[in-house]
Amino acid sequence: SKVHENGLACKDPAAVVAEDFHFGGLDKPGGTTSKRFGFTANQVQIPGLNTLGESHVRLDVAPGGVFPVHYHPRAAETALVLEGSVYFGFVSSYPDNKLYAKVLRKGDVFAVPQGLVHFLHNNGTTPATLYASLSSQNPGLVLLGNSLFAGALPDDLVAKTLLTDQHTVQTIKANFRRS
Amino acid sequence: SKVHENGLACKDPAAVVAEDFHFGGLDKPGGTTSKRFGFTANQVQIPGLNTLGESHVRLDVAPGGVFPVHYHPRAAETALVLEGSVYFGFVSSYPDNKLYAKVLRKGDVFAVPQGLVHFLHNNGTTPATLYASLSSQNPGLVLLGNSLFAGALPDDLVAKTLLTDQHTVQTIKANFRRS
Amino acid sequence: SKVHENGLACKDPAAVVAEDFHFGGLDKPGGTTSKRFGFTANQVQIPGLNTLGESHVRLDVAPGGVFPVHYHPRAAETALVLEGSVYFGFVSSYPDNKLYAKVLRKGDVFAVPQGLVHFLHNNGTTPATLYASLSSQNPGLVLLGNSLFAGALPDDLVAKTLLTDQHTVQTIKANFRRS
Amino acid sequence: SKVHENGLACKDPAAVVAEDFHFGGLDKPGGTTSKRFGFTANQVQIPGLNTLGESHVRLDVAPGGVFPVHYHPRAAETALVLEGSVYFGFVSSYPDNKLYAKVLRKGDVFAVPQGLVHFLHNNGTTPATLYASLSSQNPGLVLLGNSLFAGALPDDLVAKTLLTDQHTVQTIKANFRRS
Amino acid sequence: SKVHENGLACKDPAAVVAEDFHFGGLDKPGGTTSKRFGFTANQVQIPGLNTLGESHVRLDVAPGGVFPVHYHPRAAETALVLEGSVYFGFVSSYPDNKLYAKVLRKGDVFAVPQGLVHFLHNNGTTPATLYASLSSQNPGLVLLGNSLFAGALPDDLVAKTLLTDQHTVQTIKANFRRS
Amino acid sequence: SKVHENGLACKDPAAVVAEDFHFGGLDKPGGTTSKRFGFTANQVQIPGLNTLGESHVRLDVAPGGVFPVHYHPRAAETALVLEGSVYFGFVSSYPDNKLYAKVLRKGDVFAVPQGLVHFLHNNGTTPATLYASLSSQNPGLVLLGNSLFAGALPDDLVAKTLLTDQHTVQTIKANFRRS
Repeated sequence: SKVHENGLACKDPAAVVAEDFHFGGLDKPGGTTSKRFGFTANQVQIPGLNTLGESHVRLDVAPGGVFPVHYHPRAAETALVLEGSVYFGFVSSYPDNKLYAKVLRKGDVFAVPQGLVHFLHNNGTTPATLYASLSSQNPGLVLLGNSLFAGALPDDLVAKTLLTDQHTVQTIKANFRRS
Repeated sequence: SKVHENGLACKDPAAVVAEDFHFGGLDKPGGTTSKRFGFTANQVQIPGLNTLGESHVRLDVAPGGVFPVHYHPRAAETALVLEGSVYFGFVSSYPDNKLYAKVLRKGDVFAVPQGLVHFLHNNGTTPATLYASLSSQNPGLVLLGNSLFAGALPDDLVAKTLLTDQHTVQTIKANFRRS
Repeated sequence: SKVHENGLACKDPAAVVAEDFHFGGLDKPGGTTSKRFGFTANQVQIPGLNTLGESHVRLDVAPGGVFPVHYHPRAAETALVLEGSVYFGFVSSYPDNKLYAKVLRKGDVFAVPQGLVHFLHNNGTTPATLYASLSSQNPGLVLLGNSLFAGALPDDLVAKTLLTDQHTVQTIKANFRRS
Repeated sequence: SKVHENGLACKDPAAVVAEDFHFGGLDKPGGTTSKRFGFTANQVQIPGLNTLGESHVRLDVAPGGVFPVHYHPRAAETALVLEGSVYFGFVSSYPDNKLYAKVLRKGDVFAVPQGLVHFLHNNGTTPATLYASLSSQNPGLVLLGNSLFAGALPDDLVAKTLLTDQHTVQTIKANFRRS
Repeated sequence: SKVHENGLACKDPAAVVAEDFHFGGLDKPGGTTSKRFGFTANQVQIPGLNTLGESHVRLDVAPGGVFPVHYHPRAAETALVLEGSVYFGFVSSYPDNKLYAKVLRKGDVFAVPQGLVHFLHNNGTTPATLYASLSSQNPGLVLLGNSLFAGALPDDLVAKTLLTDQHTVQTIKANFRRS
Repeated sequence: SKVHENGLACKDPAAVVAEDFHFGGLDKPGGTTSKRFGFTANQVQIPGLNTLGESHVRLDVAPGGVFPVHYHPRAAETALVLEGSVYFGFVSSYPDNKLYAKVLRKGDVFAVPQGLVHFLHNNGTTPATLYASLSSQNPGLVLLGNSLFAGALPDDLVAKTLLTDQHTVQTIKANFRRS
């Protein structure tokens, strides 16, 4: 569409079919793979969820892999562990920066309030699989590392934010530039 | 609390711990069993989800069992099939009453818009397991059959609603009274 | 419009006139008549109510007629009796299915929380007239009987939902097929 | 309650009865009478409407009477004329101050967008009765005249707001002080 | 755009640049000047604020000048005094019409709840400058004087609203017609 | 109060006075000083803003100082430069991490969408002063550096998030432990 609104346009109601509410293949990993972090993300894509305030993703994390420290600007999240075990949690806001975390095993569910920093780390020896539900059809995603080191933030600003020197910042930035 | 508000009161923030965001045991059936309909519902109970706009439940449905025709007055729903196969769908509102449904297998996800009538029927030969996410911490649940026949609605009103006679209504009501 | 959004598009503000906020003829029955149920519905149609969170309808119910058991997926409702007398009420959600109902007479007002099952039955001997206000410009309407019997829900699913047999379901479906 | 929140506290759900959703007597004038303006307001009082986003009032206006120019800070309004005839309308916001108005007769409905200035004037010879629905359980009411002249706004400020002199302001204020 | 929605359409995300989030020149008066009331309003215009729930304006008020009694139908407001001194406040709703006001000096901040009538009056001898923040990207503005006297409200209605005579109304209207 | 709800309780309306809507002293720096980052934050504290969807803060940043890279989980922000000059901007979400930034001078205003990472850096030679408005009375604050290094996140997780080694993480953590 040539008209942009806040969120996606809807499909013509007269043309809607059952398939517009369906997505398949969540029983297997799929979608985007991050070798760098060791995860694969299989994003549920259901046109009919537009305006319904939900979205979902399957995550597969290799042993030693992480879904790195991140947050969703417009959603809370609840994750269910389907296989394996992960260290999962969130950090409260400034100035407490308090950690609420737990090793989750198959059948565990953990909730993260809207907009708070969270993560998962597979520090076991077998692959882990999770199914995460977010409370918006447009939750957004900010990876703290990528935000600081993969974009165009000036070195001096990042150094001051992290109480470190620009050389350290440049070294890490170089790592983010490598595939 | 002696003070009632719309929704639940919150816990004292100073006393909140990681366990307030955790629920375990979703890898097994549990919770409430309905022999009548052939399902078991394991409701995720996480105090920290209060105000976050999400809730979750595991459903196990025996071969031949149903989660009968129902709706949630205050939530959309998205269901993931973890095991087995179910016939799953929803009905659009009056006057179309159009059916949007599909046989779902392991790894399939299906979405239901807020407040619409939906159902699942395990018409296979093995147990089916689903994980459903709802877009409210207080979604509510109305079973159409129970609403019509298990409460105190007058027979004549139900008969007129269903274009049937009072004898039929009384016969069905008797079935709802049997455990 | 060729662009579909959640809700209706707006009129060009420069072209808006007083008539866009007006609807007439609510002093008489009108609109859609259901011989089957014995009611006539005169829906207030005001373009200017788009986005304002309200809609309104006049209902006329013949002696013995009903507005059958139904709900609005996206609205609460408040009804005022203008003439006659009706038995009016709603049913709370599962598992209570508790009935909150009352015989209303001229000048009585009764409220129904969002999304709950409700009804009205004119069990008097004179016509009844109501004016109902709903808390959404797009409240939706689901008739429980039509949802179960007038659409394409499979007989076995409906039978299991109602704890009855498929023959009974087919008999009622046949009644819904008759005009 | 000793705990104040934004809006009213709820009743204990276990103690709720049908009467909590009912109000009677709207078939007759009642409630508060304003001799000054020539209207009587019968406010629908239904505890169960708390949090439901609706409120309602019956207005009776004598020939020559007005419900003076006013607005509701937190609600849109839709009014139905039950008896008689009134000149009814609203004024758009600055800088247009455009009038959208119409003589309404029995059976006419007119809508007012949230927060806009509106009024009704019975310039006929028989009493008029309206039923107004507002899109909030706590709509608020500001009468422009009373706000300017019945409170403690300084004379010089009011005079400058109205492009008039303080003597005129004091004269009108004196009228508001008289019962 | 030829498609009208509630609020403004968005810019194509791919074409968004930093300048879409910037507005300059708030260190000087500017924008619209009202000689009549003695103020200049410099409205912050930032396309990127669309949907973000904020808007801002700089106000410069000459000695003796006012921003006349007014309200915003869709926003709360908080004002910061940057220079000079003003008498600032709001009036609660009917029937109290209670004045909450204060002489503000440089560095003072004062808040006005959504939709309530408020004002500022520079009754000092030096110009005053304020920076006001409103809680909507589309707050609306209604000046009580202009609403009553600068539009097409009938004289008799205004006279009855203000408990005065039509001659007084006509005299004030004439003042509003003069530039 | 012993009852915890989402947000703060309200004051008894009968006891509310004008001072409940006022805060003074924003013409001078004040409040909390961070020597580490080189800023002072003077948070506007107005009880009457509760539920109104706004909050405000004055920031003073020394030459070379930063308000380090951060975000607000529940608010958009608009900042006005009152004195001096700052490099100000935000980073879009993953995977773009696109920088929208600009050197702002006195009288410049810049907006940040809800929940996005932003910052300011005084890379001039004179102190800078800003007045920031946020679109929530409870916006929250997360400093990316403090979230990663000042709380209890495990070293290995932070190292993997930042594509660096644990020694670097420990070195930075040590800097955050020093006052």
